Amino acid sequence: LNIAVLPGDGIGPEIVEQAKKALDAVFAKKGHEAVYTEALVGATAIDKTGNPYPDETHELCMKSDAVLFGAIGDPKYDNDPKAKVRPEQGLLAMRKKLGLYANIRPVATFPSLIHKSPLRADLVEGADFVAIRELTGGIYFGRPQGRSEDGLTAYDTSVYSTEEIDRITRLAFDFAMKRRKKLTVVDKANVLATSRLWRETVQAIAPDYPEVEVEYMFVDNAAMQLIQWPKRFDVMVTENMFGDILTDEASVITGSLGLLPSASMGLHTSVFEPIHGSYPQAAGKNIANPLATILSAALMLESAFNLKDEAVIIRKAVDASLNEGKVTEDIDKENPLSTSEVGDWIAE
Amino acid sequence: LNIAVLPGDGIGPEIVEQAKKALDAVFAKKGHEAVYTEALVGATAIDKTGNPYPDETHELCMKSDAVLFGAIGDPKYDNDPKAKVRPEQGLLAMRKKLGLYANIRPVATFPSLIHKSPLRADLVEGADFVAIRELTGGIYFGRPQGRSEDGLTAYDTSVYSTEEIDRITRLAFDFAMKRRKKLTVVDKANVLATSRLWRETVQAIAPDYPEVEVEYMFVDNAAMQLIQWPKRFDVMVTENMFGDILTDEASVITGSLGLLPSASMGLHTSVFEPIHGSYPQAAGKNIANPLATILSAALMLESAFNLKDEAVIIRKAVDASLNEGKVTEDIDKENPLSTSEVGDWIAE
Ligand SMILES: CC(C)[C@H](C(=O)O)[C@@H](O)C(=O)O
Ligand SMILES: CC(C)[C@H](C(=O)O)[C@@H](O)C(=O)O
Repeated sequence: LNIAVLPGDGIGPEIVEQAKKALDAVFAKKGHEAVYTEALVGATAIDKTGNPYPDETHELCMKSDAVLFGAIGDPKYDNDPKAKVRPEQGLLAMRKKLGLYANIRPVATFPSLIHKSPLRADLVEGADFVAIRELTGGIYFGRPQGRSEDGLTAYDTSVYSTEEIDRITRLAFDFAMKRRKKLTVVDKANVLATSRLWRETVQAIAPDYPEVEVEYMFVDNAAMQLIQWPKRFDVMVTENMFGDILTDEASVITGSLGLLPSASMGLHTSVFEPIHGSYPQAAGKNIANPLATILSAALMLESAFNLKDEAVIIRKAVDASLNEGKVTEDIDKENPLSTSEVGDWIAE
Repeated sequence: LNIAVLPGDGIGPEIVEQAKKALDAVFAKKGHEAVYTEALVGATAIDKTGNPYPDETHELCMKSDAVLFGAIGDPKYDNDPKAKVRPEQGLLAMRKKLGLYANIRPVATFPSLIHKSPLRADLVEGADFVAIRELTGGIYFGRPQGRSEDGLTAYDTSVYSTEEIDRITRLAFDFAMKRRKKLTVVDKANVLATSRLWRETVQAIAPDYPEVEVEYMFVDNAAMQLIQWPKRFDVMVTENMFGDILTDEASVITGSLGLLPSASMGLHTSVFEPIHGSYPQAAGKNIANPLATILSAALMLESAFNLKDEAVIIRKAVDASLNEGKVTEDIDKENPLSTSEVGDWIAE
């Protein structure tokens, strides 16, 4: 198993380290051999090479079976809107160059964390859905983008092709088939031409999945429904910009942001990373919660290597750590373990 | 006082009727004279004229001091994505032709409704902010929009000029000055050229309001903060598409969707309407909650006519109706009043 490891910035290195411990434990148990190769990305990569997604990193990813990613972002770039090179550009370059067209975020509740949800417990208990965001199209990459000559007008372009919509929609239908067979397509077809193409394309594909119930929902309504009735969702699919907003909204409703993994499926490889950010205030302090990264490793075993039993073993260990209170200070203020202690406990 | 009345579709006519009762009562008490003139808009207007925003309606609005608006939307158009004329087009045409550049939504909690919030009570109690959405620019109106010749690609364009950003930003700063002096500017400056122009323009205006603390927030983060910590907001301002999503998200967090009014300030007149929709299932049943429309009338008195005492009188009557349980079935299932009974009680 060829695994590229991109720890990135902030708490990235610490949490990725724990995920590797969990992987090593399960590989040892099941007799798999893994080769991890590390590379630079994000602010760390800018500091050392001037490029947030260096060519060597890209080449490594291209020949890996999967990429384990930490987090990127450094506050020293946030306060400088005119910085020429920014860590996020590395992220966007990586997505585009690896063809990571689908970002997949399973949203689940953990009974021991329900009390951390900002929502009423009765609304989130049992919520269980997958949010799928198109990741390489739309207004993120559409051209033209820029300023008029006099500098007084700015413009961005959102573009989608039938092909781009088709491939992510089929992926979403496949997810729905393995779950409760309900697909919610989120768009703004009453305003946007791209949304109308999405809707038409989905309508053309739907007959191939007669068992799946398809529902179309405007993005403003989806932003409300996620809060009012999250249990109504099974699989949700949407375009890049709407997905950026809705998947982040979705990630906080269950109270388990520190536990949510994600997968970005690509044309060349796939990338697995926690949903949370680089949490710079905690960097180097050995206090960050490694569980989302450990669960991202489980997702990698399952999706990239088809190692389902191995994924289950890791998930069970995470459940046990929650049940037995072997957790970091964000979950247990009174009696916390450190980042590395949680990693050791899970591996053990 | 020249008031154009556009009842629109669904429950529109019923709820607007109650707002007129409240206005009449306060006008009688205070000795004002009002002329109401009704006109068609939405599905009703399509049915009668073929146009969701007929010219006569536009002319009436242009010469009115304020517009009292009900709601638009009819399910018979929702299931027909290829319908040539749709009620929403009337709404967009009205916004553009009247130059309604700023949609203003005060988000407040009502103690007697906190238990209806999907959020934990401690998070929403006392939340009190104003969400300001740019309403005539961005991807809603930017051109080009459409399809490639082969039909396989679709595109939308978001455009903003310094002038458009400037006028809404100043309005937002003015609101902040009258409140807790904190302004949150929501954008996606790490990705969009339009957002970078927003940020630059706001930065250029900020020195004119030295007392206001300005904060910049990415839209994905704002979608999370609205749920996790709504009390952090005082005045929020953002572009059209982000505003569509975030103001709807904001409207459900307090549990008082049926009570939230809005104002759209324009170059030629201003429009006051409830935030909720046309609720077709309830149309004609005399069960819809008229309070958001009544509070929109109060907002009209204050913003369009500078009649502050009169607005206060209406708001007190609404508070009293809530405290004494003189409310519709959405608030009190056991002992509801009808729409018209609530209107009568408030007027009385
Ligand atoms: C950092 C930013 C460019 C990025 C995005 O908008 O895609 C982030 O918000 C995310 O969701 O991964
Ligand atoms: C009906 C639709 C075009 C409209 C919008 O997106 O502006 C609505 O959602 C709103 O917010 O008033």
